[in-house]
Amino acid sequence: MIYLDNAATAFPKPAEPLRRALEQYLEAGASPGRGGYDLAVEAEYEVDAVRRKVRRFFGGGEGWRVCFAYNATDALNTLIMGLTQEPCHVVSTRLEHNSVLRPLHHLAEQGCISLDLVPFNSQGYVEPQAVAAALRPDTGLVMVNHASNVFGTVQPVAEIAALCREHGVELLLDASQSAGLYPIELEKWGVGGLAFTGHKSLLGPTGIGGLVLSPRVNPLPTRYGGTGVDSINLVHTMDYPHRLEAGTINLLGVLSLGQSLDYLATPEHGQALSRERELCARLAQGLAATQGIELYCAQGPGERLPLLSCNVKGMRAGDVADILDGDFDIAVRSGLHCAPLLHQDLGTSPHGAIRFSLGAFNTAEDIEAALEAMERIGSTAAAKGR
Amino acid sequence: MIYLDNAATAFPKPAEPLRRALEQYLEAGASPGRGGYDLAVEAEYEVDAVRRKVRRFFGGGEGWRVCFAYNATDALNTLIMGLTQEPCHVVSTRLEHNSVLRPLHHLAEQGCISLDLVPFNSQGYVEPQAVAAALRPDTGLVMVNHASNVFGTVQPVAEIAALCREHGVELLLDASQSAGLYPIELEKWGVGGLAFTGHKSLLGPTGIGGLVLSPRVNPLPTRYGGTGVDSINLVHTMDYPHRLEAGTINLLGVLSLGQSLDYLATPEHGQALSRERELCARLAQGLAATQGIELYCAQGPGERLPLLSCNVKGMRAGDVADILDGDFDIAVRSGLHCAPLLHQDLGTSPHGAIRFSLGAFNTAEDIEAALEAMERIGSTAAAKGR
Repeated sequence: MIYLDNAATAFPKPAEPLRRALEQYLEAGASPGRGGYDLAVEAEYEVDAVRRKVRRFFGGGEGWRVCFAYNATDALNTLIMGLTQEPCHVVSTRLEHNSVLRPLHHLAEQGCISLDLVPFNSQGYVEPQAVAAALRPDTGLVMVNHASNVFGTVQPVAEIAALCREHGVELLLDASQSAGLYPIELEKWGVGGLAFTGHKSLLGPTGIGGLVLSPRVNPLPTRYGGTGVDSINLVHTMDYPHRLEAGTINLLGVLSLGQSLDYLATPEHGQALSRERELCARLAQGLAATQGIELYCAQGPGERLPLLSCNVKGMRAGDVADILDGDFDIAVRSGLHCAPLLHQDLGTSPHGAIRFSLGAFNTAEDIEAALEAMERIGSTAAAKGR
Repeated sequence: MIYLDNAATAFPKPAEPLRRALEQYLEAGASPGRGGYDLAVEAEYEVDAVRRKVRRFFGGGEGWRVCFAYNATDALNTLIMGLTQEPCHVVSTRLEHNSVLRPLHHLAEQGCISLDLVPFNSQGYVEPQAVAAALRPDTGLVMVNHASNVFGTVQPVAEIAALCREHGVELLLDASQSAGLYPIELEKWGVGGLAFTGHKSLLGPTGIGGLVLSPRVNPLPTRYGGTGVDSINLVHTMDYPHRLEAGTINLLGVLSLGQSLDYLATPEHGQALSRERELCARLAQGLAATQGIELYCAQGPGERLPLLSCNVKGMRAGDVADILDGDFDIAVRSGLHCAPLLHQDLGTSPHGAIRFSLGAFNTAEDIEAALEAMERIGSTAAAKGR
């Protein structure tokens, strides 16, 4: 099988980092911060070491916080709900994933926030001035998808952040797709924080994600429980990291993430990333030259991730994906990619598009096979259309 | 080291089930329900198989739902917040863990609920009639800790459930401690559902827990995001299991839980559980006969888990735990065990008690060593006291 759905989850995963994390967990998997004996103290030390690794990986400065979560959706809900406990105006974009759109929509429906969603341009980018124009004196939160999970376009977030800070509001990022594929420098860019997930291009397992937050960004807790500290108090602690972490942490997930971050820093992986980008450029160029293919914002100037979306003219995306799977053993994701407003604006709703998303282990042969398959599907569709 | 803190997290874990799950994940870890290709469909099939296993393990009937979560605290918050979207009266107990007390306290502080916490008796049990007496016409939720994480006492939940249902309200359980140690028969007992965690006596990893719910119990979603279904809709789906699961599921955690449940069903583990209970009875009997030890609700009639709490008279729990760790290499948990009201009522707040919690891999030698250590600490303390 040729797996080109790495934007859903990276597959395959580098096995050794995960195996090492499991052995580490089996060897010393006590409950961090929940006991005074050596094994529990060591576990907490290991967790703190991964927190520092995560902070540095995303360019968070001294004093920045890392709080772990179940997945990016969990982290984003914690962030959004925790920052809108007082009514305010929120600015986001029409590029967002449902993990941002749905909590914001819920809050807007409940009358807790007023919401403006900034459009993207014909190249798939959000223009910084469009965000600035949406800001109001009561804007309390600006949330932008760092890189579109449909177009792969990486947004000019440093510029957006500068305009936000001029208005006294922090920019926060959904980095689900970009983390691990595009270098992130939160403090340098003046961004207030981000949500990430471990199982996509960080090459870790499912079940672990989190928030990296500037000391300027302080969501209120929205889940309450045991933290191992201040247990006498019926009010959940306001101290980090426990403030946004209730109950036993996913120690196996944290250890796995630590191992994965080490793996990402290897020269071997650096080469894989370069290859991934070149292969995606080759795919974009090949598809652009293929009869009957409509490619969306996959070429031209601007930063992008190694993923792209397209349709075969005259065919439904789901049918193309089924043929790719059934006839060519190629796995892609079709449909709306949990980004309904993007597809609405693109004119591709409700059937969406097919998305090719590359990974660290794809080869030139995979891409040639995908191009050949798309040529055959495209020319068959064109012939039927005539 | 002698590990007697299994109520915090089971340690060691049986390694083979977790290693098998990781290999299964590395082999076929696509994103369940997020693609139409074989690997994603297979992953969804595997997840559904574990859902059925979990449902049967807890005695849920046909039509009962299993929704996965990050940990028990996450599952409990989802349940409590999701069932109190309309103001109502809630009954719970003073035996609860902060994972129940803190969300309820928050809701009460916000004026969303009125709250009654039923006391426990001198044996560490909640009396069914005490729960019944607290019920009101507007009671919308009754939440009981199935087994105390401090006393180990297993509550008579079938009797409590019968009284609740007479009043037209469902009983819900926090089964964090009991799951895997005490057979649970939700449907037979007439209980509406429970929250569980995977990393305690289910012997799975951290990062996976969940809810098992009767079709009569339908919390509203409190987190919103992508589900892989109905992506066009900005409102989070009300269909199970997605209703209470937002974002990518912890597939590695789910696979691990499936493997652990298989392990729990082996005769080998059945024998380990019997031994665990016998060893705890021996520990209780030995401590009861030891000079200077105050034992809490650890003997007498009634069902209990293999864990118990005590203090050395005239010493702080934390100091005893430090000596056990430093001088005897025995790991126990001291303090309030995230159950502040229990310790308040017991008269052991703010220093709490020390808790011995056994696991599947403890031996008779471990227990004799613990008894010997406690005898020495107890007699030293008694000598100083004179």
